[in-house]
Amino acid sequence: MNVNGRHFRTIWLKESDPKIVQIINQQALPHRFEILDLSTVEDIRRAIKDMYVRGAGLIGAAAAYGMYLAACEAGDGTFDRDLLAAAGILKNTRPTASNLAWAVDAMLSALSGREGIRAEKVEAARRGADAIADGDAEFCRNIGAHGCGIIEALAEKKGGKAVNILTHCNAGWLAFVDYGTALSPVYAAFDRGIPVHVWVDETRPRNQGASLTAWELAGHGVPHDLIPDNAGGHLMQRGLVDMVITGADRVTRRGDAANKIGTYLKAAAAKETGVPFYVALPSSTFDFTMEDGIREIPIEERDPEEVRYISGKTLSGAIETVLICPETTPARNWGFDVTPARYITGFITDRGIAEPSEAGIMKLYPEAAV
Amino acid sequence: MNVNGRHFRTIWLKESDPKIVQIINQQALPHRFEILDLSTVEDIRRAIKDMYVRGAGLIGAAAAYGMYLAACEAGDGTFDRDLLAAAGILKNTRPTASNLAWAVDAMLSALSGREGIRAEKVEAARRGADAIADGDAEFCRNIGAHGCGIIEALAEKKGGKAVNILTHCNAGWLAFVDYGTALSPVYAAFDRGIPVHVWVDETRPRNQGASLTAWELAGHGVPHDLIPDNAGGHLMQRGLVDMVITGADRVTRRGDAANKIGTYLKAAAAKETGVPFYVALPSSTFDFTMEDGIREIPIEERDPEEVRYISGKTLSGAIETVLICPETTPARNWGFDVTPARYITGFITDRGIAEPSEAGIMKLYPEAAV
Repeated sequence: MNVNGRHFRTIWLKESDPKIVQIINQQALPHRFEILDLSTVEDIRRAIKDMYVRGAGLIGAAAAYGMYLAACEAGDGTFDRDLLAAAGILKNTRPTASNLAWAVDAMLSALSGREGIRAEKVEAARRGADAIADGDAEFCRNIGAHGCGIIEALAEKKGGKAVNILTHCNAGWLAFVDYGTALSPVYAAFDRGIPVHVWVDETRPRNQGASLTAWELAGHGVPHDLIPDNAGGHLMQRGLVDMVITGADRVTRRGDAANKIGTYLKAAAAKETGVPFYVALPSSTFDFTMEDGIREIPIEERDPEEVRYISGKTLSGAIETVLICPETTPARNWGFDVTPARYITGFITDRGIAEPSEAGIMKLYPEAAV
Repeated sequence: MNVNGRHFRTIWLKESDPKIVQIINQQALPHRFEILDLSTVEDIRRAIKDMYVRGAGLIGAAAAYGMYLAACEAGDGTFDRDLLAAAGILKNTRPTASNLAWAVDAMLSALSGREGIRAEKVEAARRGADAIADGDAEFCRNIGAHGCGIIEALAEKKGGKAVNILTHCNAGWLAFVDYGTALSPVYAAFDRGIPVHVWVDETRPRNQGASLTAWELAGHGVPHDLIPDNAGGHLMQRGLVDMVITGADRVTRRGDAANKIGTYLKAAAAKETGVPFYVALPSSTFDFTMEDGIREIPIEERDPEEVRYISGKTLSGAIETVLICPETTPARNWGFDVTPARYITGFITDRGIAEPSEAGIMKLYPEAAV
């Protein structure tokens, strides 16, 4: 999407030197727009580990480009062994990110045991990484194409008044290579001239809404307002939310969706107030091995310091971290919650819209039917 | 309640010099426990205006002590006129605080046109202010006595395991003269040895939960954990919340309750998950002139900078304010939301427990029946 009128992806090869991977440093956002050059596997490892890149799709693409850099670095006689070592290093950065392992394994199996001269292998690695990045962008673009129709229908019902869409956390293009999931339909609608306005949930404790979603919507010119996570119910009661779209971290075959903590509160209020609640996701986010999301999806508990401290920019321009509670206050910090299928209006996927039930999901994914 | 083992109210007359009003400076909390001496009407005006004292009950008591200091300052021949001037100054500090106007008017009517020597009038003013403060504490103590039974019943059902109570914002003793409303039943249960544990909602954007509720619970020794506002739904789904208790800013005769923004989201999730949801309030918080809370209760929209900036303590101990979103991000900031009566299990009042309906409320308040 655009940053101040210029198109960007979250990761790409440097035009003047395709042995360098470039990324937007998301740790610096929203206070500084910074592009970093990554030229070694170690650079990529650190970028993933320290969350310069984050988000399911983007982590996968970064790992794929990491394997490309590994191919560039690999010894002629030790090519396969060096690649295997790099794969281990990259997979270790964020062990629970399933896209990461998938991308690394895909690169490994495409490159290992391959005949031919070194330059050809490096070229194949580059094409492989590009294909993974392009594939991610294409999945997200398709989510936007399918979701756009829902927004368009709401806009028609509103007679041209802006469609108010509430989103939680960041499931925008910054979390993927381009377009995003929850925000992809919003960008598609905006680019087609459909009037939209986004309510951006701050998303405590890590504030991905305030720092990333607000930043990327502004960069592309989409009208939006930042709100505390507490405000959504009030807005729904007053008819100020036409639909909710969130991303998902994992969705079971029955349609129970794990997503950033706080999603379920919005879903419960949406059900009570009759506001449509959509979950947007690439096909790879379905976990067809699970049924009951509340019983089966493990919920990560994170460092309580994320709740007790918050970072931002001081008046003098420095980035500072401040304690917001008494020194001794204990805190708890669950990363995700599960929204059961009955709260969900539909799943917006790269294959189309799925109804929130096992039957509805199996219609789009017949290969997963048992 | 206690602060590190010593009993405090939020406002009192200095023992060694009863012409000085002392308060806990709530602007300094939670990072510094500071007691301020207020010896003039101007001191009281600034303390209310700049929110050194806040909360319905405490503002009323502070205004009453302000009128007492006005009586101390008043000229002998201009006593009534000076008191009237002070009343105007005090009422102007926070025009929407109904307890403030009520307390000032009560003091005025008790003192104006009174016969007798000046020392007697000053003594009457002191007794009047003390009575208002004592009355506030007594109302809150009664709320605790009535609500304690509900917690006790839950504790019995749990066979002695701690009762998990979720609360939002600060409706503790810091908002009143003592005990508080939502937290008064918690303190009552704790003081009787009933095992309790409080989930403290951070309460963005002003963080009254993180800064005030966490502080006062710690001071009295009540077990608690700070959580982001986003976590409550997850906890309810997993059976980790036995009841919710919040305060209220205004409750209609039908039982629709306005309270801090975000309360409604917890109420909707509580309904969906079958968790009892109680609202604790003194009788004076009922507004019997209103019926439909969503249509009739005006919801204040506050400064968006409260959403964009957050204050806390840096590692070096300084209090610093930081920006948490891009410089240009627009924000919206509604202060309250309305929880309709159908989400509420019961009202815990100083007169007893009321069912959440006009009939239920009128049973406790027959004088308001039409």
